[in-house]
Amino acid sequence: MLNYENDFNWDKNETTQTLMDETYKKIVDEKENKVSGYYTLGEDSLPIVDAVLAQIESSEFIQKCDTVVVIGIGGSSLGTKAIHSSVKHQYENAKRIMFLENPDEIDLSEKLATIKKEKTIFIIISKSGSTVETLSIFKEVIARFSLDYAGKNKKQIIAITDFDSALYKFAQHYGIQTYNIPKNVGGRFSVLSAVGIVPLTLAGYDTKALLNGASMMSENFFALKEKHLLEKAAFFTAYKEQYPMNVMFSYANCLEDFTKWYVQLWGESLGKIDKEGENVGLTPIGHIGSVDQHSFLQLIMEGPRDKTVTFIKLENFEKKIKIPTISLKFLEKADYINGYTFNELIDGECEATKESIIQQGINVDEIALDKLNESNIGKLIMYYELLTSLCGKMLHIDTYNQPGVELGKQILVKKFN
Amino acid sequence: MLNYENDFNWDKNETTQTLMDETYKKIVDEKENKVSGYYTLGEDSLPIVDAVLAQIESSEFIQKCDTVVVIGIGGSSLGTKAIHSSVKHQYENAKRIMFLENPDEIDLSEKLATIKKEKTIFIIISKSGSTVETLSIFKEVIARFSLDYAGKNKKQIIAITDFDSALYKFAQHYGIQTYNIPKNVGGRFSVLSAVGIVPLTLAGYDTKALLNGASMMSENFFALKEKHLLEKAAFFTAYKEQYPMNVMFSYANCLEDFTKWYVQLWGESLGKIDKEGENVGLTPIGHIGSVDQHSFLQLIMEGPRDKTVTFIKLENFEKKIKIPTISLKFLEKADYINGYTFNELIDGECEATKESIIQQGINVDEIALDKLNESNIGKLIMYYELLTSLCGKMLHIDTYNQPGVELGKQILVKKFN
Repeated sequence: MLNYENDFNWDKNETTQTLMDETYKKIVDEKENKVSGYYTLGEDSLPIVDAVLAQIESSEFIQKCDTVVVIGIGGSSLGTKAIHSSVKHQYENAKRIMFLENPDEIDLSEKLATIKKEKTIFIIISKSGSTVETLSIFKEVIARFSLDYAGKNKKQIIAITDFDSALYKFAQHYGIQTYNIPKNVGGRFSVLSAVGIVPLTLAGYDTKALLNGASMMSENFFALKEKHLLEKAAFFTAYKEQYPMNVMFSYANCLEDFTKWYVQLWGESLGKIDKEGENVGLTPIGHIGSVDQHSFLQLIMEGPRDKTVTFIKLENFEKKIKIPTISLKFLEKADYINGYTFNELIDGECEATKESIIQQGINVDEIALDKLNESNIGKLIMYYELLTSLCGKMLHIDTYNQPGVELGKQILVKKFN
Repeated sequence: MLNYENDFNWDKNETTQTLMDETYKKIVDEKENKVSGYYTLGEDSLPIVDAVLAQIESSEFIQKCDTVVVIGIGGSSLGTKAIHSSVKHQYENAKRIMFLENPDEIDLSEKLATIKKEKTIFIIISKSGSTVETLSIFKEVIARFSLDYAGKNKKQIIAITDFDSALYKFAQHYGIQTYNIPKNVGGRFSVLSAVGIVPLTLAGYDTKALLNGASMMSENFFALKEKHLLEKAAFFTAYKEQYPMNVMFSYANCLEDFTKWYVQLWGESLGKIDKEGENVGLTPIGHIGSVDQHSFLQLIMEGPRDKTVTFIKLENFEKKIKIPTISLKFLEKADYINGYTFNELIDGECEATKESIIQQGINVDEIALDKLNESNIGKLIMYYELLTSLCGKMLHIDTYNQPGVELGKQILVKKFN
């Protein structure tokens, strides 16, 4: 379960209500006309889970594998990483997922050195099928592990890409198993497609619960049971000049990768030239509590009033470690927390920080998860995807393209040609 | 060696020159009057290196230890982590450094499970001596490992704190080895004091080279050989309304912790109420290339023109992994990069991205490191500390305090009392 609390200082008026009503209708249209296909992935991807489960069932090789290597970058890795990091604490025997993303030699060398070819499934993911970083790393994997993709090693390779892309054709040509990404699902909205579902199911996570969580959020939204989303989007976009930044303050280390996923989703979707030719957008910033109370909080509290802050917290922790009731000589002042759990401490830090920020008149909202599991992460992902689509509509932009990154790609190709 | 390139679109005029001259004088005063002591840590901390080296020499226990646990948060961990992550790739036999920072049960449990008491040095760091997260985690360590701090285990504990703090008194009372942080060096400026030097020297890193690098930067700056720093500060502060954010785009995974250190230094130092009662500050944002080209770049390129971008890149890589000259059927379009090293690819990505951003009229600057080693990281740290002090002076604020975080701490204490 997720609980929401919006603490925004604003006057909603009739125009706001009209805007919300109209935006809701536009999103319903977008879903019905399949402008973007992510809305229904919670349901559409269930057969992929079954297919992967069947594949595991029938393959001794996969069963004895202990590592799933994901070769992909951006939308092909961030979402999977976010889910993996958030839910792995529940499992003792999940397969390791390793992400080969950046063409960084130090990072690549360290990671490749830990891979045992005979216990590894290699998944290459690229929506366009031509991502240069991904293909280069794939070549290095082929060379280093003498990966016979055309012959005896093809059973340990999976390709995930758009139907008919160059990578699709390559995989089909050699009989490598291929999963398609729906054409109408962009990279940063694709985590609940095969992109995330295949590696996460192979690793052993409960991807059905993940998808069901997402479906529930999507269905509730379209049944007008999640109006807080419309309000939040209306507030964020109405005040975009005054508050150009949103800080996601998550109170759990394992949500750090989730904040990175949010940064991509929010930044790449909403940073656009609008239909009037204006540069618009909202800047996403991710932080982790309580660590970053000792870093970024001072700026929120006393710096320019240019940020909204979203707190993400856990309400019901699985583990319970009590702070020992030890009193250290001269350090007795810290004894007030003795006997409470660390979770109560971190939750107290979140609440205290939120209150101190609210006292400054800063606009905050909170999302509380009752547990950190697949179902709630599925809901949270759909929550943020919906929120992004709503903001995009209110900003009059195309939420789903990313024309701004093309120029750098062209310059890169020229440099090496 | 570090190379700098400022690509700012602005008209420097006489006022700018006067501002730079005056600010330089103020910083010279600050150094001479010891308002902040970080300027000379490059030299002042050399005896700490010798002390720790002597300690290692004389202690078989330390020699056989394989892990250094740092219990600390914020200024007590971020800088050490930044250096550790940046330079560890050079060493095969350095001791592991583990950071216990956040009172997060999942993270704590996972880390504590990997510690072998008989091969570990525990360093507790708190400038104030009363940080509640740090003391609570220290208590957990004491309880879990039956750490006899008053008796036979005291030789494996080190305290680093202000002279006469509660932690200092505790350590002195039990004869635990203590290193002091200079009173005039704030937490986020303290990495080159005992805070960073003790754990990094114990781990086996070349901390003399680190300190010498820092000294060189500081001396050059005060000898007016690094005027680009004054220009950058003048530009960033003059255009703070127009460009309230600075994005650090580092093209190496192992610089990610450096960007986090920068975020604390910049955010906590510059987010302040100025002498006219205005909320001022510049918002620091950290990103890693080329990964975040697939995430944040679109927003920089097409979103609001509210950011400056600083590129950090490496010019001379140690490792050389060539992208294999493999041509994959249907994927031949990516062959243009075959035979180049991954480092050339990532460097090309950095250059191409920078050019594409400059073409939008966005202000960028670049810091190029010829190698990723202690000397250059020492320079880079001092560079950023000096830049922060210069900006603080130009913003008419107290760069070294952090009054905004107190309210949350008070609310927290009330919650548990």
